[in-house]
Amino acid sequence: MDCLFCKLVNGDIPAKILYQDDDVIAFEDIAPQAPTHFLVIPKRHISTLNDLTNDDAALVGKLPITAAKIAKEKGLADDGYRVVMNCNEMGGQTVYHIHMHVLGGRAMTWPPG
Amino acid sequence: MDCLFCKLVNGDIPAKILYQDDDVIAFEDIAPQAPTHFLVIPKRHISTLNDLTNDDAALVGKLPITAAKIAKEKGLADDGYRVVMNCNEMGGQTVYHIHMHVLGGRAMTWPPG
Repeated sequence: MDCLFCKLVNGDIPAKILYQDDDVIAFEDIAPQAPTHFLVIPKRHISTLNDLTNDDAALVGKLPITAAKIAKEKGLADDGYRVVMNCNEMGGQTVYHIHMHVLGGRAMTWPPG
Repeated sequence: MDCLFCKLVNGDIPAKILYQDDDVIAFEDIAPQAPTHFLVIPKRHISTLNDLTNDDAALVGKLPITAAKIAKEKGLADDGYRVVMNCNEMGGQTVYHIHMHVLGGRAMTWPPG
């Protein structure tokens, strides 16, 4: 599997890991766009949001739940944060393994890109 | 319950509804930030991402799955789209009932706000 995030899940490339369990892993973004910017991804390879099936609900639902837990640990919960997922080129997706961006520590503006 | 989106769920305020089932409802954003901009929300009131519990995984996981289905129906799937959820003030949250923004029809930029 020539997927950057699958390699990260397998420990083949380094990352600043914030959390992991059997289903998901969270790590710092290498090109942060806010004082706090980390990613939460499923360990199982899913290329894009378009590839989700109804059976994936509990797994993909763990992404925002995990994001919120880490945001709390980082002291972002009260001030707030933004979560973002990009699908395909016009959405801005660059790694084709679904991932949730979590950005905080500054006031996020609107529109969201 | 003095929540705008609970009123919408109950049919007490109008919306351009795109989809609904027992768990979620999707409707057009009234202040669109892209050629396509709709929201997907749980029918059950959850104020912010911080209020999610582990038991909510399947419900909150239906948001991106529903977003992707509607994006496909709207012909956005191949080009792509972005999904966004804002938590609290610095995240840009304005309605305190969790909602997933889905934006497409133009190239989304980075950072996401």
